Order: sequence, then structure tokens, then C-alpha cells
Amino acid sequence: MLSLDKVFDAQTVLKSIIRETNLVRAYGIAPDCELYLKPENLQITGSFKVRGSAYKIAMLSPEEKEKGVIACSAGNHAQGVALAATKNGIKSLICLPDSAPISKVEATKGFGADVCLVEGCYDDAYRKALELKDCEGYTFVHPFDDENVIAGQGTIALEILNDLDNIDAIVVPIGGGGLISGIAYTVKKIRPSVKVYGVQVAGAPSMYNSVKDGKIECLSGVQTIADGIAVKQPGDNTFELVKKYVDDIALVTDDEVASAILALIEKQKMIAEGAGATAVAAVMFDKFNLKGERVVAVVSGGNIDVTSLSRVIDRGLLNSGRSSSLLIELIDKPGQLKDISRIIADCGGNVTGVHYEKGNTESVNGCFLRIEMETRDYEHVNLITQSLRNEGFNVI
Amino acid sequence: MLSLDKVFDAQTVLKSIIRETNLVRAYGIAPDCELYLKPENLQITGSFKVRGSAYKIAMLSPEEKEKGVIACSAGNHAQGVALAATKNGIKSLICLPDSAPISKVEATKGFGADVCLVEGCYDDAYRKALELKDCEGYTFVHPFDDENVIAGQGTIALEILNDLDNIDAIVVPIGGGGLISGIAYTVKKIRPSVKVYGVQVAGAPSMYNSVKDGKIECLSGVQTIADGIAVKQPGDNTFELVKKYVDDIALVTDDEVASAILALIEKQKMIAEGAGATAVAAVMFDKFNLKGERVVAVVSGGNIDVTSLSRVIDRGLLNSGRSSSLLIELIDKPGQLKDISRIIADCGGNVTGVHYEKGNTESVNGCFLRIEMETRDYEHVNLITQSLRNEGFNVI
Repeated sequence: MLSLDKVFDAQTVLKSIIRETNLVRAYGIAPDCELYLKPENLQITGSFKVRGSAYKIAMLSPEEKEKGVIACSAGNHAQGVALAATKNGIKSLICLPDSAPISKVEATKGFGADVCLVEGCYDDAYRKALELKDCEGYTFVHPFDDENVIAGQGTIALEILNDLDNIDAIVVPIGGGGLISGIAYTVKKIRPSVKVYGVQVAGAPSMYNSVKDGKIECLSGVQTIADGIAVKQPGDNTFELVKKYVDDIALVTDDEVASAILALIEKQKMIAEGAGATAVAAVMFDKFNLKGERVVAVVSGGNIDVTSLSRVIDRGLLNSGRSSSLLIELIDKPGQLKDISRIIADCGGNVTGVHYEKGNTESVNGCFLRIEMETRDYEHVNLITQSLRNEGFNVI
Repeated sequence: MLSLDKVFDAQTVLKSIIRETNLVRAYGIAPDCELYLKPENLQITGSFKVRGSAYKIAMLSPEEKEKGVIACSAGNHAQGVALAATKNGIKSLICLPDSAPISKVEATKGFGADVCLVEGCYDDAYRKALELKDCEGYTFVHPFDDENVIAGQGTIALEILNDLDNIDAIVVPIGGGGLISGIAYTVKKIRPSVKVYGVQVAGAPSMYNSVKDGKIECLSGVQTIADGIAVKQPGDNTFELVKKYVDDIALVTDDEVASAILALIEKQKMIAEGAGATAVAAVMFDKFNLKGERVVAVVSGGNIDVTSLSRVIDRGLLNSGRSSSLLIELIDKPGQLKDISRIIADCGGNVTGVHYEKGNTESVNGCFLRIEMETRDYEHVNLITQSLRNEGFNVI
């Protein structure tokens, strides 16, 4: 049974394994409220997951420890279990689908786990893990639906309440629900006046739907940049805990998540992964009514692939007018690129790409010119467009 | 005169203004030594600069405070002075060249300063600031060559020495030399056995050259992605302090700095600006002999423009084979793009761009195809190249 004693016990057990992450006051992200971040992206292994796994593993019997643990994950849970097992001096085997990114496989090995690559998708790897568990006597470490795992995640709430007084609300990402179950349970037992809000992405609303409909539901598919919380079905325990202790759940879009990632980079110099930025996105885009309140948003992890990060940044730059592209119809006379370049340079735009494209231009010899530029904002783009038009260019 | 008392006094004065940034153990960046980061990128205003400015301003006489302060900067110093003045309840005027990025101007205003945009470059803005100082009686806050500013930066050393025992070396970026002067002075007075190393970029080696030649030298120009330390000439005070208290200075290249920025993102979930990553770059690329040692690298700031960040990431991805581009000569028969796409997909590559380019191909109707892809690493790129060649494609 989950109990407050367990959460306090977990805090003691975890002391030598995890980092106590200090709250950071975040200015300029959500000016209407007093926002603090709980930066679990700066946690060792780059996510909160190590807390639950490490407490689960520490509570195993000597016989269970002797045999080792097994888990199935392509992400943060894998690294959490691997490090927790290594720190407890026991062996761990992680099943991953063979499509998992090399970087994640390497990171998991780096924390001391053996890795079993399973042909197929996550579900295949999961089946393999259960099979090996039965054959070999490993203990299976569930990513969220386990009371010791939940108690471990609850230590985050103890740190938050110890760090800051008079909190009005704590906002927490939800995937399977382990993180928010631990936090909400702990908060409501210690300081029930503090609201606990959950956030899912619109592309994976499993807990949101289940709570709304009053019964556990399984999504047929999930689609989001927040892959860390792309979970099809809540756990039995976490569903009950969320129903009982969480005040409200909201959904955010992938574009809102991308904006939150960019805001955390620009304002806080911090990298969050998609799942990690959902709580911040919910506060930024005012999903709960938190005006004037003292709010803590949990940034649950920072393990975003650099390739994805690069795409998120590029999208954010486009969305805010800091990069832009113009299509200009050219007619058949020399010197046009020269004139266009001059006009853009005079306006302070920085050309980063030039492409000639054929197309249905007025003149048979005409063509389209696509110019990619770095710009300051939308106003700057408009200024450049207007200047080009003033000199007779047909900007499409 | 700089004294240890001053540094301790600064620590008390700064308590209510700055964040005490905690050392972070950095795994995986420099496996040969025990590396800690002093994350001043997480400092309020995103850089250490606020420390020196705030102490300087706090030490002004009531008459000086009444008249306000003036500074000239397009970067971290501007924001530091602005916030420090606002927290002390006095007015500040910052002169910036009118070419300064909008984001920096807005950030400076956001911290409460008045901004005076001066036509021209940094030197023009600097002249204007001195002129206004004389006319209006403002106090000029120098970015580095001032004993109170230096004492403020020295508080970083107090925090480091308080946070961690048995440090072998502290590695510090050098621009004008204010940061390292404060740190080296404080460290050598308190724990002289700790080495203090300085780092400059190869494109702006003003202190490096000056110390080597034994006299202050002025560079004719500077060129680096580490714009925060692109300083042409050391200060008189900082030159003397560096000569006396700094053990060694090394240079890093812009590519090394870019790799350090990427490593901080991937391993530490932290954003550093170019200047902020130079000390980490020096440790990563083994510029001092720190094998087996306990080392603190100061990450001095995180105010990198997202556009630059995006370029640094793209460059890092290219450098490590995680993005790549192939040039393939096509002959004039249908279905070739189909075959190439299939081969790349079968190898697990992800096509992100396709361009046909004319050129001197064997057949008059031939052309070149440029394929941009996301790949895992160089080995993966080679696998794809080889598979294409095996099916008869001429990969250039």
C-alpha cells in the first residue's frame, strides 16, 4: 500500500543516488503568475525516472536482488533502471525495440545495463521482457504502475514543499501517471490546499479520456513530439490515484509544447524534452486559471534527441518570424538578384538560402526565386516584403 | 585596492540580488577527469556579469546613486547593469550600437534600463556613453577593468570553494579579464594550491598575446562565435592580476567551442553561449594537463541567440555524421529517385531534402541529385553510400 511513510522512506534511500534538484524561479515565461520550475531535466540520467526505479530496486529482497531486474523501455525509464541497478550493485537487463535510436541504446549501456534488442516495436520488446522475467526469475520494474515506483516519484513533492512556502498549484506532466500519482498523493496528505494539475498532449490523451469517462480506456494510437508521455493506457493504480488526488487535467498541442521548449531555452538556458515541457506549456498557454498564483511546473526530463531539438528550434524560429522565406517572380532581365540582395541587406535581413524554381510565370523566360532569410520578427519580414514591392518586385 | 575583504563584502551585498549557482557534476563530457560545472548561465540575467555590476553600483555614494549609471554593451554587461541598477533603485542608461539585435535591446529594457541606440558600431556607442557620462554626471560602469566589478566576480570563487573540497583546478573564460581576475585573486588568497587556468578563443587572443609578450597589446580585429569574449584589449588592472595570479592560458577554436555547446546540451541539458562554453571546450580538448584531476569549469553565460544556436547544432550534427548530404550522378532513365529512396529507407536513413542540380555529367541528359539525410553516425553514412554503390549508383 502507498503511504506517506513510504515516500519519506524513499527520500532517505534515494539520498545517495539522486540529485536534489532545486526550484528555479522562471521569469518571462508566464508573466501573469509567479512561476517556479522543478528541473528534473537536470536530474542524473536527465529525467525523474531514476527516483522510482531506484526505490523499487532498493526495496527488493536479497533473493530478488541476486537475480536482477528487467525492464522494457526505449527512453528515460531504461536509463533510470540501469543506473538504479548499478548503484545498488545488481544486474539489469533492458529490452528495447531494435528501432530504438543508437544514442538511447548507448546511454542505457553506459549506465551499466545489459541491453536486449528485440525485433519489432515496443509491444514486442515488452512481451519479450515478460517472457524473460518468467524464465529467468528477474524482477520486472514497471515504468509507472507500481506503488514503490510511485513512492519514489513522490519524493519530488517533498523537495518542492520543503523548498518553497505558500504554493498555490503544482503542474505535472502525465504519461502513465506514475509521476503525478506520487506527487499528488504526497501533496494532498501533507498540504491539501495546494492544487495539483495534470497535463497530457492532445495526441496521447489516455489519462484525460479515462478520467473524463470514469473508466480506464486504451487509445488505438498515439502521435506527439512528447514521446516520453505517449502512453496508450493508464495503470490501474495510477488511474485510481489520479481520480482521487488530482484536481484537473488539461491537454496541450505539439505546437504549444514546441513553444515551451523554445521558451525554456531562451529564458532559462535549459533543455527540456517534449514530455518535460508540457507542464510549462500548460502554464504558458493558460490551461488552468493561475493568474497571480505561485505555481511550480515540473520539468520532468531533458532527453531530447539533438535532431528533434534542431527541428523544434527551426519551427519556433519560423513561428515567430525569426526565419522566413519569400517567393519572388523574376522576369527575364539581368541584375535582378543583385537588386533583391541589396534591398534585403539594406533592410537588415540576412540571406541564408537562394533557389531558382521553374513555374508558371508570366514570361516564358521567367522563373521564381525563393529567398530564405534570418529576420528579427514578422514586422521585419513585412518591411522587407514592402521594400521589394516598392521597387517593383512581385513578391508572391 | 582589491582585497579579500572586498570580495567577502561583495558576497554579503549580492545575497539579495543574485542566485547562488550550485556546482553540477558533469558526466561524459571529459571522461578523463572529474569535471564540475559552475553554471553561471543559470544566473539571473543569464550570465555572471550581474555580480560585478551589482557590487559596483551598491558601493556608489548617495550622490552618485542619485545621478544614475551609464554603460555601453550589446550583451551580458548591459543586462547585468540594468538589473543591478533597478534592484538598487537607481536609474541606468545603456548605450548600444543601433545594429544590436532587437532581442538584446528588449532584454535590457526589460530589466529596467533606458536604452540609447547609437548609430554605428560598438566604438561609436562607447564614445557616446563617455560623452553622456561627462555631460550628465552619470557614473560609468566598466565591464571589467574596475576593482569593485572584479571583487563582485570574485564571489564566484567563494561559492566554488565553499561547494567542493580538494579542487585541483578551476578553468575560466577570458574576455577583458574581469571574471578570471576576481576568481584567480580570491582563489590564490584562500587556497593557493588550486590552479587557475584561463581560456580565450583563437579568434580573439588579446590577453593570451599580451601575457605572452609581457605587455598589453591591442588586436586589430576579432572574429569568433564566442562574441561575449571578443575583446580587443585587456584592461590595465586585469592584465596585472592575470599575470600575477593565473597559472596558464590556452586557446580554443570555434569548432571546439561548438562541440562544447553541443556536449552541454546533450549531456547536461544546459544552454551555454560561445564564450560560456570555452572553459568546457578547453577541458574537453585537453588544453591543460588535467587527467585524473578534480576540475571546475566556469560556464560563464547562456545568452546565445536561438538562430546561432540552431547553426551550432546543425554544424555539430554534420561534424558527427548525424546529418549528411550525398551527391549522386544520375543518368537519363526513369525510376532512379524511386530506387535511391528505397535503398536509403532500407538502410534506416531519413531523407530531409532532395535537389536536382545541373552539371558536367557523363550524359548530356544527366544531372546530379543532392540528397540530405538524417543519419546515426559516419558508419551509417558509409553503409548507405556503399549500398547505393552496390546497386550501381555513382555517389560522388
